[in-house]
Amino acid sequence: MALPKIETCLSPSLLHLYDIKDSIVVIIDVFRATSTIAAALHQGAKEILPVDDVDRCIELGTQIENSITAGERDGKVAPGLQHGNSPLEYPRTFIENKTLVLTTTNGTRLLHMCSEANEIITGSFLNLGAVCDYLIAQKKPVLLACASWKDRYNLEDSLFAGAVYDTIGDHFEMNCDSTRAATHLYRQAKNNLYEFIQDSSHFLRLSKFGLQYDMEYCCKINQHNVLVKLVDGKLIRQ
Amino acid sequence: MALPKIETCLSPSLLHLYDIKDSIVVIIDVFRATSTIAAALHQGAKEILPVDDVDRCIELGTQIENSITAGERDGKVAPGLQHGNSPLEYPRTFIENKTLVLTTTNGTRLLHMCSEANEIITGSFLNLGAVCDYLIAQKKPVLLACASWKDRYNLEDSLFAGAVYDTIGDHFEMNCDSTRAATHLYRQAKNNLYEFIQDSSHFLRLSKFGLQYDMEYCCKINQHNVLVKLVDGKLIRQ
Repeated sequence: MALPKIETCLSPSLLHLYDIKDSIVVIIDVFRATSTIAAALHQGAKEILPVDDVDRCIELGTQIENSITAGERDGKVAPGLQHGNSPLEYPRTFIENKTLVLTTTNGTRLLHMCSEANEIITGSFLNLGAVCDYLIAQKKPVLLACASWKDRYNLEDSLFAGAVYDTIGDHFEMNCDSTRAATHLYRQAKNNLYEFIQDSSHFLRLSKFGLQYDMEYCCKINQHNVLVKLVDGKLIRQ
Repeated sequence: MALPKIETCLSPSLLHLYDIKDSIVVIIDVFRATSTIAAALHQGAKEILPVDDVDRCIELGTQIENSITAGERDGKVAPGLQHGNSPLEYPRTFIENKTLVLTTTNGTRLLHMCSEANEIITGSFLNLGAVCDYLIAQKKPVLLACASWKDRYNLEDSLFAGAVYDTIGDHFEMNCDSTRAATHLYRQAKNNLYEFIQDSSHFLRLSKFGLQYDMEYCCKINQHNVLVKLVDGKLIRQ
């Protein structure tokens, strides 16, 4: 039997090059949306509502019972919202059974851009294993979709794409240079991911806000090993 | 004095993210447009006219004295044209003092997309040294612009961008993950560039047409070490 195809899209601006209607799209926003999403669901959040902007976030927060609103702009909780975008901010005692209404700069936008996909899941180093196990089991074409930073290629999302291919490449057919490059990079970085990532534009930007510890946490593998899937506009644990 | 900025654009589809009006743009189409351009000018071609399509190529070929037309589609000389897109096809005895009217799939298009740039030069491993010397001397911002393959990221153009930064990075300010990734890749590949590139989509595609020797040649550094600049719509040796 022919193996399903796996490809990597390095920026939302390149998404039009890929036919995703039969594919599982893995949304990747390592710093920090998809890391925070994995952490919150692992700690018992009921569901996560990804929304595009702060106003919509506030509006939904008032409508949904037992919900909290979250989102940052420039490393701080956005005005009008209650919480930030850190995977460390959502311990079980706080988030269990709550709905998290979350707005982020890049990840949410890409997620909405992929609405034609056959399925959407989210990926981060924190739930790498669950993502890989699921993709192997489904036997469908896969697009690893990097959220990037305002459409610019970034190192950390690409490294996660490389980690996926490095782990499960044998189960797929691959002829995609973005995937090849990501895998070369990951193999170079894997023994000390956090050190490698410190020379990256996103690390340098978020460091100015004192978020190094957050980023170190986002580089940990399988800390919150849940599968996160988009169902009826909500991200839930499967 | 502040150093000028250097950045890398991985695909023509990402060009809108970069402000190029004060920059030198280096057009990179290693397999094979910018390699062939370096070779032909080094062997004494008078100038190269990059054109978008085969019809325009034929038309200019009939109008310009002492010209030859060239271009390939799917690894073969395009119908109506006289020559192909191989750097080995243009020895001095053949090309000296002639005008080469050239159409290629990706490189020519990107070149025309960059018309707002302060300056346009072309780069390939065959003229890496000349490109680097020129960029150091000019002290202007630089965009390393990969032609890619039909807007998809490719490994060989990215590797060349990495080679430039690996060589002259100290003379520039850099905070661009595309450049960082390209440089990591180049440092991994540089001791055997041709072997590294054999696992790439473009190599696999062109190998089907028997063009391995062409690609091996395109991986040689400084074989045709000329600076190629776009002046009044023509690529000339400076």
